[in-house]
Amino acid sequence: MQRITELQNKVEQTLAEQAFANSPMGLYEPIDYIMGIGGKRIRPVLCLAACELFNDDISQALQPALGFEIFHNFTLLHDDVMDNALVRRNQPTVHIKWDTNTAILSGDAMLIKAYQYIAKLPAPLLSAILPLFNQTALEVCEGQQYDMEFEKRDDVSIDEYIEMIRLKTAVLLAASLKGGALIGGANETQAQLLYQFGINIGIGFQLQDDYLDSFGDTESFGKAIGGDILANKKTFLLINALQLSSGKTHNQLKDWIQKDLFDAEEKIKSVKSIYQEVGVEELIKNKMIYYYEEGMKALEQVNGDEKIKIELAGFALKLIERIR
Amino acid sequence: MQRITELQNKVEQTLAEQAFANSPMGLYEPIDYIMGIGGKRIRPVLCLAACELFNDDISQALQPALGFEIFHNFTLLHDDVMDNALVRRNQPTVHIKWDTNTAILSGDAMLIKAYQYIAKLPAPLLSAILPLFNQTALEVCEGQQYDMEFEKRDDVSIDEYIEMIRLKTAVLLAASLKGGALIGGANETQAQLLYQFGINIGIGFQLQDDYLDSFGDTESFGKAIGGDILANKKTFLLINALQLSSGKTHNQLKDWIQKDLFDAEEKIKSVKSIYQEVGVEELIKNKMIYYYEEGMKALEQVNGDEKIKIELAGFALKLIERIR
Repeated sequence: MQRITELQNKVEQTLAEQAFANSPMGLYEPIDYIMGIGGKRIRPVLCLAACELFNDDISQALQPALGFEIFHNFTLLHDDVMDNALVRRNQPTVHIKWDTNTAILSGDAMLIKAYQYIAKLPAPLLSAILPLFNQTALEVCEGQQYDMEFEKRDDVSIDEYIEMIRLKTAVLLAASLKGGALIGGANETQAQLLYQFGINIGIGFQLQDDYLDSFGDTESFGKAIGGDILANKKTFLLINALQLSSGKTHNQLKDWIQKDLFDAEEKIKSVKSIYQEVGVEELIKNKMIYYYEEGMKALEQVNGDEKIKIELAGFALKLIERIR
Repeated sequence: MQRITELQNKVEQTLAEQAFANSPMGLYEPIDYIMGIGGKRIRPVLCLAACELFNDDISQALQPALGFEIFHNFTLLHDDVMDNALVRRNQPTVHIKWDTNTAILSGDAMLIKAYQYIAKLPAPLLSAILPLFNQTALEVCEGQQYDMEFEKRDDVSIDEYIEMIRLKTAVLLAASLKGGALIGGANETQAQLLYQFGINIGIGFQLQDDYLDSFGDTESFGKAIGGDILANKKTFLLINALQLSSGKTHNQLKDWIQKDLFDAEEKIKSVKSIYQEVGVEELIKNKMIYYYEEGMKALEQVNGDEKIKIELAGFALKLIERIR
């Protein structure tokens, strides 16, 4: 994973050189803040690595790679407003540190900034990658919409859930990879294999995120544990627990979902104990492995630099196995 | 103005053919709603007319023209959330008809949709117009930021105010014109003259909007009269009234600004009466004429179809003189 680490450093260094905090500060300072509080820079690293599969010179991919990262952070900013999340990466969210109007408007400016970085591509590449970026960005919004709708529904199926996380999380990883491949000179078939790799590891990654939201620890997860449980988020864990539990356990789970007044700690503890009783921990781990292996099948078919392929495989495994 | 009317019809017809209301409906229906409740389609009409100054075939400008209109409606959607406006074009605003989260997310999707329409340009034009669109979109956000900041400040100067409305309103009209001119084949100098025309009529247009917000009537203005007065918006009217009033009148005006508890109707009536007493009505009208004439000076230098130039001049005059 030496090259991935180098690319991560390259992304951090280039981000640090960007002057996000311009005038008016009330608009741009929150952008500087959220871009500066970290994250693993997964999307730009995937973009650069995918470019390097096909081309030793990755300089043309650097600015668009940042565009993918800025877009991702824009979605976090607006999602945190919509979910009323208080903490992100162990720091107060923008709408808490400033206010909701600031979070809305700075988020809008960030989305436009993302396009400014994509727009740095030369003409023929821009015409190929801008539609991919547009389509992906809309799909991410669709994913967030489904996510919010699912909170109010009790009949979400596993298929619907997987489709939601494909849209909300996986397509952006996939587009970062495909975009990087196209910039590196890959043909459509090769670029599409990287897209498939991204979709599969993206779904695996989100399943892991759901798992950690219930079973991780606050410090390393970077936000409060149990948020999904408190919000009755129809995650892979909850949907399966509802389907697989029966009798008293099933009724207890439904009671917790329906209760309006409860002690937060007690709800988290009880629902986690039901998850363990029903065995959904094992189930989600198997599902993660399934998507990882599907991703690997796509990656193996790529005709790119073998060393970078191995690095990408290792990075994907780390993403899915992460104990943050 | 026959050609302008034809272009307006062309825009309406093309908009009606767009399928904004896709699945998930919760995301896309508000886009269909706000795009459907009217407006004068000023930006796409300016874009098409500017294209036609230089080219009989305006077909290539049609989709980007819609992009400018969709972007404009996106800003209305998010601005209405930030200003907590209840009514837009005599209809409930999106965050009232649906909810705030819907307004945020559908607005995001609209901004991306705007880019989808811009992205339909062929490669060389896209590379020229996308940076213009990006820069303009950021400036519009900056204008909204200044607008919100000015509400909390008591020392806003006329120059700061004019710069704010240049950013918030004028640059988008200017970019629609410049973009249309470039699509029509204009060189940079010619396109820039249209940009200057747009800046000046845009500032005049916003001054008119401020005037109507206090002195128009609800039915034709499409939203409640006196909103600016109630929000202590530092408009051209209020800034001048603060500077030009003295003694008892000045103190009365400051009292109205500082009062937390008041009868809305009484505040609007009293502040309007101060505006009339101080003579800021006359002042704002002279300022509108100044910007209209500056705009005309730029338009006159354009080497384009003379008939379209006359139509554009007439359209600009109507915009600034509008009694909606």
